Amino acid sequence: MATLGDIGLAAAINLITALIFLIAFAILRLQPFNDRVYFPKWYLKGLRSSPATSGAFVGKFVNLDYRSYLRFLNWMPDALKMPEPELIDHAGLDSAVYLRIYLLGLKIFIPILFATWAILVPVNWTNDWLEQSKATYSDIDKLSISNIPQSSHRFYAHVVMAYAVTFWTCFALKKEYETVTKMRLHFLQSEKRRPDQFTVLVKNVPPDADESVSEAVEHFFLVNHPDHYLTHQVVLNANKLSELVEEKKSKQNWLVYYQNKYERKQSKRPMMKTGFLGLCGEKVDAIDHHIAEIKRLSDDIAEEKENVKNSPKAIMPAAFVSFKTRWGAAVCAQTQQARNPTLWLTEWAPEPRDVYWQNLAIPYVSLTVRRLLMAVAFFFLTFFFIIPVAFVQSLANIEGLEKNASFLKPIIEIKPIKAFIQGFLPGIALKIFLILLPTILMIMSKFEGFLSISNLERRSASRYYLFNFFNVFLASVVTGTVLEQLHTFLKKSVNDIPSTIGVAIPMKATFFITYIMVDGWSGTAGEILRLKPLIIYHLKNFFLVKTEKDREEAMDAGSIGFNTGEPQIQLYFLIGLIYAVVTPLLTPFILVFFAFAYVVYRHQIINVYNQEYESSAAFWPDVHGRIVGALIISQLLLMGLLGTKGSASATPLLLALPILTLGFHKYCKGRFEPAFIRYPLQEAMMKDTLERAREPNLNLKGYLENAYLPPIFKEAESDSDDDDDDGEISDKKWAKDNVLVATKRQSRKSTPVPSKISNGSSPNLLEIQEKDKP
Amino acid sequence: MATLGDIGLAAAINLITALIFLIAFAILRLQPFNDRVYFPKWYLKGLRSSPATSGAFVGKFVNLDYRSYLRFLNWMPDALKMPEPELIDHAGLDSAVYLRIYLLGLKIFIPILFATWAILVPVNWTNDWLEQSKATYSDIDKLSISNIPQSSHRFYAHVVMAYAVTFWTCFALKKEYETVTKMRLHFLQSEKRRPDQFTVLVKNVPPDADESVSEAVEHFFLVNHPDHYLTHQVVLNANKLSELVEEKKSKQNWLVYYQNKYERKQSKRPMMKTGFLGLCGEKVDAIDHHIAEIKRLSDDIAEEKENVKNSPKAIMPAAFVSFKTRWGAAVCAQTQQARNPTLWLTEWAPEPRDVYWQNLAIPYVSLTVRRLLMAVAFFFLTFFFIIPVAFVQSLANIEGLEKNASFLKPIIEIKPIKAFIQGFLPGIALKIFLILLPTILMIMSKFEGFLSISNLERRSASRYYLFNFFNVFLASVVTGTVLEQLHTFLKKSVNDIPSTIGVAIPMKATFFITYIMVDGWSGTAGEILRLKPLIIYHLKNFFLVKTEKDREEAMDAGSIGFNTGEPQIQLYFLIGLIYAVVTPLLTPFILVFFAFAYVVYRHQIINVYNQEYESSAAFWPDVHGRIVGALIISQLLLMGLLGTKGSASATPLLLALPILTLGFHKYCKGRFEPAFIRYPLQEAMMKDTLERAREPNLNLKGYLENAYLPPIFKEAESDSDDDDDDGEISDKKWAKDNVLVATKRQSRKSTPVPSKISNGSSPNLLEIQEKDKP
Repeated sequence: MATLGDIGLAAAINLITALIFLIAFAILRLQPFNDRVYFPKWYLKGLRSSPATSGAFVGKFVNLDYRSYLRFLNWMPDALKMPEPELIDHAGLDSAVYLRIYLLGLKIFIPILFATWAILVPVNWTNDWLEQSKATYSDIDKLSISNIPQSSHRFYAHVVMAYAVTFWTCFALKKEYETVTKMRLHFLQSEKRRPDQFTVLVKNVPPDADESVSEAVEHFFLVNHPDHYLTHQVVLNANKLSELVEEKKSKQNWLVYYQNKYERKQSKRPMMKTGFLGLCGEKVDAIDHHIAEIKRLSDDIAEEKENVKNSPKAIMPAAFVSFKTRWGAAVCAQTQQARNPTLWLTEWAPEPRDVYWQNLAIPYVSLTVRRLLMAVAFFFLTFFFIIPVAFVQSLANIEGLEKNASFLKPIIEIKPIKAFIQGFLPGIALKIFLILLPTILMIMSKFEGFLSISNLERRSASRYYLFNFFNVFLASVVTGTVLEQLHTFLKKSVNDIPSTIGVAIPMKATFFITYIMVDGWSGTAGEILRLKPLIIYHLKNFFLVKTEKDREEAMDAGSIGFNTGEPQIQLYFLIGLIYAVVTPLLTPFILVFFAFAYVVYRHQIINVYNQEYESSAAFWPDVHGRIVGALIISQLLLMGLLGTKGSASATPLLLALPILTLGFHKYCKGRFEPAFIRYPLQEAMMKDTLERAREPNLNLKGYLENAYLPPIFKEAESDSDDDDDDGEISDKKWAKDNVLVATKRQSRKSTPVPSKISNGSSPNLLEIQEKDKP
Repeated sequence: MATLGDIGLAAAINLITALIFLIAFAILRLQPFNDRVYFPKWYLKGLRSSPATSGAFVGKFVNLDYRSYLRFLNWMPDALKMPEPELIDHAGLDSAVYLRIYLLGLKIFIPILFATWAILVPVNWTNDWLEQSKATYSDIDKLSISNIPQSSHRFYAHVVMAYAVTFWTCFALKKEYETVTKMRLHFLQSEKRRPDQFTVLVKNVPPDADESVSEAVEHFFLVNHPDHYLTHQVVLNANKLSELVEEKKSKQNWLVYYQNKYERKQSKRPMMKTGFLGLCGEKVDAIDHHIAEIKRLSDDIAEEKENVKNSPKAIMPAAFVSFKTRWGAAVCAQTQQARNPTLWLTEWAPEPRDVYWQNLAIPYVSLTVRRLLMAVAFFFLTFFFIIPVAFVQSLANIEGLEKNASFLKPIIEIKPIKAFIQGFLPGIALKIFLILLPTILMIMSKFEGFLSISNLERRSASRYYLFNFFNVFLASVVTGTVLEQLHTFLKKSVNDIPSTIGVAIPMKATFFITYIMVDGWSGTAGEILRLKPLIIYHLKNFFLVKTEKDREEAMDAGSIGFNTGEPQIQLYFLIGLIYAVVTPLLTPFILVFFAFAYVVYRHQIINVYNQEYESSAAFWPDVHGRIVGALIISQLLLMGLLGTKGSASATPLLLALPILTLGFHKYCKGRFEPAFIRYPLQEAMMKDTLERAREPNLNLKGYLENAYLPPIFKEAESDSDDDDDDGEISDKKWAKDNVLVATKRQSRKSTPVPSKISNGSSPNLLEIQEKDKP
């Protein structure tokens, strides 16, 4: 049992770690040669170009202005300065609402902190139950519910506090849901014209012997939406083309690498082997070889493009159908079209950036099977992942290694290597698995057939949360692997599960406090340092970058990463709500996390992340639902805990709480969720009418015609030199439409805005905002 | 433990009971004076009038044709003769599809019977486990799974059979869902023009300071559905009017009663007391008193009608909005209208007959609270209903009665009365509760705020099924009240629940066989006798009937009673599926029930029941879902049972079954359910186009204008004599519209179709069908 002193020490260590990270960040970010790592967002928005102000050569790479180092924490107030409406304008609604999750954490836990410390800490402290019991205990336990004697009347204080916590949390949740809903509707309302407002994605177009998919779509919608149908675009299977373009890109990178190498050392032309990984095969001149390869691929790409455009096999039974009005699209997206509900399925088209093109052609039956398979797979992944990991570990121990690969024996027997392997190997399989987990979950979601990246991320997030709940939270509370727990719980009574876990809860408080400090505090500080992108950028910069455009591409802005970030926050909500009443001492640690993470992520969103898509905060129902879930779990565990404390009269009083919370959830679901799924006709009609009044002669058809062309066509286009103007789809047009579709970011790339580095702070936001306004 | 002989005896007893019922029915139905009890459907359709053929006075009441008695079972083939399309035409799709539930039972269980008797019975019989164990056992147990030794390999036969049962059931379910979906779509497609095809119910119209509800509705829909909106009708709160009309009707009945009495015995004017229940108060001339009362009520009704029409308080924030096309209505019903998803809620208007008028004005928040309250109430009703019942029972014992009502003591002490009370009282509270249960559940559904009668019945049915599952099925298997079980199960492990129940399953086979015979066989035979309507009709006929119209009203055709009938069938599905593999002997009893009930209910639907509304088989997803649920329960219980039989390797093989079944359910939900909830635009467009081609000059507005007037207005109208033509809503019009809205039944009332009683069978159906065709 840790004492308050131990925790203080741990806190100090973690604070120092975090501080070191922050100082490292402060120093690194001030160096001009790191500018593209720490301010990529501004480069992408075209508001900042490569630093060339200082004049001196050294000044290009190292910041020599000592004053800027003194104000190394200045980024914090800077990050908080930008007002929310400007943040939405700058980074999109998704990012702005994502930050509100941290704010919600603060809103929920600050009042809880005051209430519990004012009431529960004295109630817990003024007992001598632990002293009497003569068990080993620490000061923390004296502050927790453990210090209350069996069947004491003081438990009523905890019951009342549980009610207070529930009501306050629900109140805060409702307020927040309301705000986010308003923000979303306002965002959708004030938005500029976007292709997805007029477009519906139609899947499962039935095959027709007499008509092509394109004709079938046109006829169907001309008949069934005669007044509203405008145009459509069939979905093309461009997966092979996409592979070829990828390959060409990689070859081009290598070409640049070898050319750079040759430039630096003109004496010798670089050579390479053509075989596997460059380890075997014929030796050829690397530059010539790559030029030839690129030529070959360019031809292949041109051919494949022709192929995709003309072959009926490449046309998938899906189409993006555009309407004359938003009203028409809203109607089509929300209604059933055909008699057979598995044909002519319609849904809102995601933003063009957000479409996950590969999944557009999965038939209905296959979808059901895929979902079922993935549900089963996820169950096994959650509860049995430890089996293959343990198997790999058993292979990877010293004895196993010596036995299976006896030729390695002489090397392994060397002492320092042996020690290293013994210390390192057993853990590595698990570590690798945990690092790969988000990717595995993402692949599972992709396999399930979701059609937009935002949807994929939401699905992965909910699975990642469940995994964490069982394998991080439960596995920490009830020590032992989840598999063992599953076994135990199946043998236990339904009634006993909450009390088994509930009893273990107060004992694990110190563990979770440490967890919050390591994962929450130091982890968040590590996030701001961006060590991985930093290294990768400099490697690329050294080997591949020749032109300013290459440097642009070497920059990896990254994104929020909803699928890993949100489940982590949710874990803190869960821990915070569970311990709010049980061990009030834990709440401040949670609060520090929320406050610190809020500042850090606000900074990152303003300066670093470049959100790939805009889902208009479509994830909020998930966030809300998981917090409500955490609330209910906390109530059940408290019931279980009080049940074992012999407080027979206090426990039934808690019974109403989960029921009320469920009722609250149902209410919110009905009241707010539709705003995240549907698009009200009133809204659509209003925008239509306004637009018609403002631009009566708008050529909508031209605007929408090629909005939903797979991006790979555009990419293939910009890379290839041999244009074919005779194709049905004019390539010139794509490029033009691309400008219309994309946000204004690219078009401003060359605006000369002075770098603000010499200020030793992030760019002057208000000034830029001023310029950014239309 | 019952032997085969015991069961044979029980079967004989029940068969004889059923036979007695059938003979009584055969005799009673042939008597002309019972004609309106046993053939009300034909009277309501106007295809049969009161018997007046025989001429002789006696012949009017008693059938003297002895030959007709010989063919007393002729109704059975007659009932089966009518082909399904004509049945749909005659009684509606709801009734026809309801009968298919019984057919589905036959389809599922006949192949199961053959398979299990061919394979499992020999496998079970050729063991001597029960003989070896020397426990008491019966022949039935020798045929069941109990006779297989522990950890025998023979259990694989049961596992294979469980797979076969699952696949067959799923296959039959899918086929049936497909058929019913087709029938529904065909029915909707081939239907005549009906107001509900064009109409959407709009709820939660927001209050507006400047506009009345009617104006607000008109403006909103003119703006947001400019091309499709036609007209609307606000919902009026006519609950008080309805009460007055009810009261008037009752007084009129009494008036007729006293007039009849006076006519029979002219010597003395009937007198009555005005006080409570006619027991106290002033003595007055009954006829004069009632005439005065009716006059007063007529005035009140006229006044209240004025009130409802003109007072803004009587106007509810809801309206029936009609559109120019089915397409427009389909669009409006399936989309969200306003920003705030709790305002301007739209849904398909139910058929005018199906509307439950009282619930039309419940606001959104109140609905959430009501649902939550009812969920909690239903939980307590299911698990704790025994507490108040036991309390009433404890009050109602002799000692309690003597103590609480000591003035009754002298009476109670009389021996025969005491014996009667002692034998009768303890059970009576429970009996009354069980009789009242469907009514209680119906009141709960009404409180929840459902808007159509069909919806109310579906909700009640699902609750009734749950109640039966816990209190009839589980309580019979695991002896003891559900409350005790709940306690036991909460203390048990999750894993143990299926095995606890599973082990008890084979032992309860004889109990359920008896249950099927008593409840299923004799109960169904009792249904055809219609004892209650018979008695009530003759009482009314004697006291109240003066004119032919009165007789018409005295007739109580009744309806299928989906809310009580369907849960009962589902219980048989559950028992049948559970015992299919465990005790194959039970299956034939289930089959006899399904076959017999099919014939009986087919007869009743053709000759008796008068369905109040037509939901176009909207209940099928519920039926399907509950059978799938029963299948999963049967799989879990078999797993539990095999688990205790030491067949460790056979049990995991079953694990895939519930998962596959769930997958099947999901598939069906996606594939078929939308046809029961939405109306495809393709369909709507097709009907619109056809109609426009056929009747280009149709005055749709006139047709729809008053279709959704509360029925009470029409009733109040037809009863009152003092018309007011200055009202906004022309009363004449209602009457006219009424003809259009209602089915053709009333209009044909006077068609002279000869009674077919002298044939000693139900009317010649084909002949009547011929005439019934347009």
